[in-house]
Amino acid sequence: MSYSNYKNQLQKIADVAYSIAVLSWDQETYMPEKGADLRAQQISTLSGLHHKLYTDKELEVLLDNLINDNSLDEKQRKNVLLTKETFDKQKKYSTEFVELMSKTISNCFQAWQSAKEKNDFSIYAPELEKLLALKRQECEILGYEEHPYDAQLNEYEKGITTKEISQLFEQVKTELVPFVKKISEAKQVDDACFFQHFDKDKQWDFGIDLLKQMGFDFSAGRQDKSSHPFTTSFSPNDVRLTTRIQENDLSEMIWSCIHEGGHGLYEQGLPIDEYGMPLGEAISLGIHESQSRLWENNVGRSLPYWKNNINLIKSYFPEQLKNVSAEDFYFAMNKVTPSLIRTSADELTYHFHIMIRFEIEKALFENTIQVKDLPSIWNEKYKNYLGINVPSDAQGVLQDIHWSHGSFGYFPTYSIGSFYAAQFFAQAKKEINNLTEQIESGQLSELLNWLRTKIHIHGRLYTSNELCMKICGEPLNEKYFMDYAKEKYAQIYKMNL
Amino acid sequence: MSYSNYKNQLQKIADVAYSIAVLSWDQETYMPEKGADLRAQQISTLSGLHHKLYTDKELEVLLDNLINDNSLDEKQRKNVLLTKETFDKQKKYSTEFVELMSKTISNCFQAWQSAKEKNDFSIYAPELEKLLALKRQECEILGYEEHPYDAQLNEYEKGITTKEISQLFEQVKTELVPFVKKISEAKQVDDACFFQHFDKDKQWDFGIDLLKQMGFDFSAGRQDKSSHPFTTSFSPNDVRLTTRIQENDLSEMIWSCIHEGGHGLYEQGLPIDEYGMPLGEAISLGIHESQSRLWENNVGRSLPYWKNNINLIKSYFPEQLKNVSAEDFYFAMNKVTPSLIRTSADELTYHFHIMIRFEIEKALFENTIQVKDLPSIWNEKYKNYLGINVPSDAQGVLQDIHWSHGSFGYFPTYSIGSFYAAQFFAQAKKEINNLTEQIESGQLSELLNWLRTKIHIHGRLYTSNELCMKICGEPLNEKYFMDYAKEKYAQIYKMNL
Repeated sequence: MSYSNYKNQLQKIADVAYSIAVLSWDQETYMPEKGADLRAQQISTLSGLHHKLYTDKELEVLLDNLINDNSLDEKQRKNVLLTKETFDKQKKYSTEFVELMSKTISNCFQAWQSAKEKNDFSIYAPELEKLLALKRQECEILGYEEHPYDAQLNEYEKGITTKEISQLFEQVKTELVPFVKKISEAKQVDDACFFQHFDKDKQWDFGIDLLKQMGFDFSAGRQDKSSHPFTTSFSPNDVRLTTRIQENDLSEMIWSCIHEGGHGLYEQGLPIDEYGMPLGEAISLGIHESQSRLWENNVGRSLPYWKNNINLIKSYFPEQLKNVSAEDFYFAMNKVTPSLIRTSADELTYHFHIMIRFEIEKALFENTIQVKDLPSIWNEKYKNYLGINVPSDAQGVLQDIHWSHGSFGYFPTYSIGSFYAAQFFAQAKKEINNLTEQIESGQLSELLNWLRTKIHIHGRLYTSNELCMKICGEPLNEKYFMDYAKEKYAQIYKMNL
Repeated sequence: MSYSNYKNQLQKIADVAYSIAVLSWDQETYMPEKGADLRAQQISTLSGLHHKLYTDKELEVLLDNLINDNSLDEKQRKNVLLTKETFDKQKKYSTEFVELMSKTISNCFQAWQSAKEKNDFSIYAPELEKLLALKRQECEILGYEEHPYDAQLNEYEKGITTKEISQLFEQVKTELVPFVKKISEAKQVDDACFFQHFDKDKQWDFGIDLLKQMGFDFSAGRQDKSSHPFTTSFSPNDVRLTTRIQENDLSEMIWSCIHEGGHGLYEQGLPIDEYGMPLGEAISLGIHESQSRLWENNVGRSLPYWKNNINLIKSYFPEQLKNVSAEDFYFAMNKVTPSLIRTSADELTYHFHIMIRFEIEKALFENTIQVKDLPSIWNEKYKNYLGINVPSDAQGVLQDIHWSHGSFGYFPTYSIGSFYAAQFFAQAKKEINNLTEQIESGQLSELLNWLRTKIHIHGRLYTSNELCMKICGEPLNEKYFMDYAKEKYAQIYKMNL
């Protein structure tokens, strides 16, 4: 009885959380301009209510009883323990703080949108400053052992530390920097086929085809357009993807569709009977990202995938792709070249984009750099890491939505996700007979089923680390990513390793 | 201080109410099929929270203090009094009842959708039965003097009774029945020009043109598509219209755009500084409907309006409308003919559709008819009132969304709205110099401004009756509608009165 009371209460809390997600989704897809201020207020009010429900005395009593209840099964016990953890964390926040944070984020997001549009960082700076002040305060509220930034990282990848990520990135850098340098000295591949005029409606239709092929269930989700592609979910039965389409760059749409589709499949694969419960949630952003990256990189940027899909895309763009073979297309999409924009970076230099953001965030939380100096710091790092000049803040420090959402500590999960993806995919290849051949013939359901049963269905039953151990027999190991990268790119760039 | 506390609290309650509106809007526009069940639960939870906030002890104390506060100005006092009224009403409901009602409505809505699609009333009947049982219970909770149905009517048009509406409809019938009969014996007008193939995208664009012309602010609102056109609002700065487009019937889109546009203009015209307060709300559904009807009928179905717009619509459909003059178009759109579907009825026989629904609802609340008999009762009344046979329940008793939303007592406000519209428009014609000429030259801003200052800006400062007295110097009088109708249709049908 008390477990069902607890479940009932938790589901109500989830109802509010998902309502906030609906309002946020609308904010970024359909909301008219003038709606922004009051929408910010509405989301803030719901956030306050959500927090109030999560710190309710009645829930505390229920949790305390259930923790000592021996009649619970393993999953029920896990739900209770994870809820208790969240409860204790929520209790550290005041409702006023939650509402203020929510409103500050909405304002910051609006300022970012406008600043990016007008290429004017000064519109964004004061709002970002306010948000950062709150975020620094949040680190103190949440607590940390070594570094204040740890508190932020832990929001997305439980247990990980600034120190560990620094070490991981140092290790990757050691191999990746010389490897990328070697590639830059090899004969370059031609990616001109991506940069022609591609009708937006046709691109849209092709993207939907790819999502269907992956197994995304359109009766339990949909795709819309937004200025920055994202995935959100209102339940496993209502998962929303967004994409962005460029008329003169086919890659933008393809990678955002497959990437967000990977996120969407994870959300649709979470157990619906655990709706609102920890076991109905994704483990962490790193694992979430492993799902999008696995589909985007390990599947979507592979030769077998395009051997299957080259004719489909040619049916949409026969003129533009007349003389393009599956192999040409595969080479073109895997061109390694330092670039300005993270979301359209190749899968190798991508990690330099992340390292830059990681270093900046770390410094912001150490209070050793100032918001007003972000554009120049950004530009300097892009020069150092990628050897390129940033022509405008809109294409530089303003390119990402994340900070405006208060998401600090989020970026590293993109790299972690890629490393997990490579590791999981290597394991899937071992366990699924003829996976390469299946992909080549457009059969993606066995792979999806493998991900469903190995990862999605468990929700938060395991931690990232436990899951990785369970699936692969060892913890996260970036070696799988480096092995995959080296084999693939040595072949594309015709290099000896 | 206590007024600002009260305002702050009321605005939070409004934030929750508008969040429910966002979830409902999404439910009817974009939500994928499988999302329905959990969406119902999410809306139900928010409804429960809304109710809890509105019955909060702290709010009660604030209200009791403010009622005796002599420092309030007239508008503040009005806000407090109206809030007290709502508070007392809300207190009559238990949170459980509110949540149950919300969930029952969502289920009923889903059942209606499916029943309509499959033309199978039996899918809908059991859900409607449950909803009606709750609604009957609600009448007892709310209380009434003479007739239980009064309690429902009062939700939409405060102060009106079953008896008054019966009398009003009797009076209208006395004149309208013989007048419609006379029209049916006159030489018929030709409306074939409306029933050709009209590209949906072009229709959409034309509808947007009309809305812009009316003065609908697209930076503070938008239009989408839904199976039943409606208007909802998340603040005066974010007003959502929906429309429905038929490929072989131009009228569907035109009338839904102008009609919902009229509702939308009212919502956009409400005072934003009274967001969340009674004075930031529309007076009643009757007055709301007067705004949509005034634009739809008195403006949109007039000859001057189409003298201005005939070339615009011809630019979209040059082939289809090649030989159609403004006058032909005007005659066609005003063809009076008994029909099956309320929303596409002409503005005279329209009221028979309403009378039918009124009689059925009245009987449902008297418990003298059964849900299972609704199809046959419906069909019989359509035969009696309109002389037509209903070929299927989808086109009969299942045509309207309203009952599935629990909206009983709503339909009569459509007729009341038409009568108010005619009365207000007659007054506007007296007060605005050359209104007809303005409409003929596409100048609609003075009319909009008249509505803004006479009606919109006041929110709920006056009751329907007070507003009508203030604007027209007399209460609602259906004579203006009959005068308008007789003059217009005698001319169209070349009849002597």
